[in-house]
Amino acid sequence: MRFQRDWLTLYIVTGAPENCRLGLLDTVDAAVAGGATLVQYRAAHEKKGAAYVEALALRQLLAKRGVPFLVNDHVDLALAVDADGAHIGQRDLPPAAARRLLGGGKILGLSVNNTAQLAAADAAGDLALLDYIGCGPVFPTLTKRDTFPVVGLQRLAEFVRRAAPLPVVAIGGITAENAADVRSTGVAGIAVVSAVCAAADPAAACRKLLPA
Amino acid sequence: MRFQRDWLTLYIVTGAPENCRLGLLDTVDAAVAGGATLVQYRAAHEKKGAAYVEALALRQLLAKRGVPFLVNDHVDLALAVDADGAHIGQRDLPPAAARRLLGGGKILGLSVNNTAQLAAADAAGDLALLDYIGCGPVFPTLTKRDTFPVVGLQRLAEFVRRAAPLPVVAIGGITAENAADVRSTGVAGIAVVSAVCAAADPAAACRKLLPA
Repeated sequence: MRFQRDWLTLYIVTGAPENCRLGLLDTVDAAVAGGATLVQYRAAHEKKGAAYVEALALRQLLAKRGVPFLVNDHVDLALAVDADGAHIGQRDLPPAAARRLLGGGKILGLSVNNTAQLAAADAAGDLALLDYIGCGPVFPTLTKRDTFPVVGLQRLAEFVRRAAPLPVVAIGGITAENAADVRSTGVAGIAVVSAVCAAADPAAACRKLLPA
Repeated sequence: MRFQRDWLTLYIVTGAPENCRLGLLDTVDAAVAGGATLVQYRAAHEKKGAAYVEALALRQLLAKRGVPFLVNDHVDLALAVDADGAHIGQRDLPPAAARRLLGGGKILGLSVNNTAQLAAADAAGDLALLDYIGCGPVFPTLTKRDTFPVVGLQRLAEFVRRAAPLPVVAIGGITAENAADVRSTGVAGIAVVSAVCAAADPAAACRKLLPA
């Protein structure tokens, strides 16, 4: 599957069960009905067996819906369920190792917090291995506890310029109220966890997050 | 690397840092000097980046020493550092998925607690995908918190008979004092964590655990 920039338009990251009002599959199915353009599975389980079962169910659902599906952190899980790719962070396997395991036909995204990390990834030759970059947290967020400092809109716009031509998806504290401001920084799209997973109506929540 | 039954003779599982007196590399190097026949890396880190660095260092050390090296749970980590294989548990990726990712040239071991789990693995066709089985805990152990009930020597001997011709390595609470009793059940070998990692002299600890 060849990466398309517009897959980043409305990028859904699955939340931990305690952050989801509906079940995982119903939430994701509703999000897709509301216009989600990509789904990333972030496993909330300590053991990979239970995560495998969930990821496989999502893989099957999203294949039916024609929406790309990525797995967070665990490249083995991504490969085991034949996901479209993986998303890794600064503390996961190095991008070169992840790309080697995924092969050239899968999508690989990397979380990068600031331009210093971007320059380091560039110097390491990692940017050429990526399809996109996730940058955040744009705003304060409660979903993840181990995040880097808040980026803010001004630094995000600068980051997007420096990362070009690699597309950037912004994450962290994005809501229907601030989505247009975030999009105005030049990002290829926005990623949300709780704004959709915690919504009583994930489809409606997605519609409000799409570009006008 | 073709699996050899005698690799299971004295199988070392790396412990969490708080259970190791010496550093990880020094402990493993001493264990190999004392006769360890295989080393399995059990990552104690939540994030895979730090585990990757440790696993890579162990991979290099053990390649020099000519001792086979496995990675616990994380097949992506095993592949990323080109370990000789992986060891998975009942709550990890299914054996069929792990074997698919590893390919035929790598070692795959599975933890099985009792003959009911063994029969289930047989019925699923999983046993044909394995090189060996880890069975335990033979005795009570404090190293792992999420284990199944204690097996004991009598059930272990019965398990070994039923698993044949697949070789079994016993784990859980094995010490220099009970090692000979465990070996008398017909296991191909014994696996230890704290008996070696927590020892002031891991080489001496290994020598006491080898068959007479």
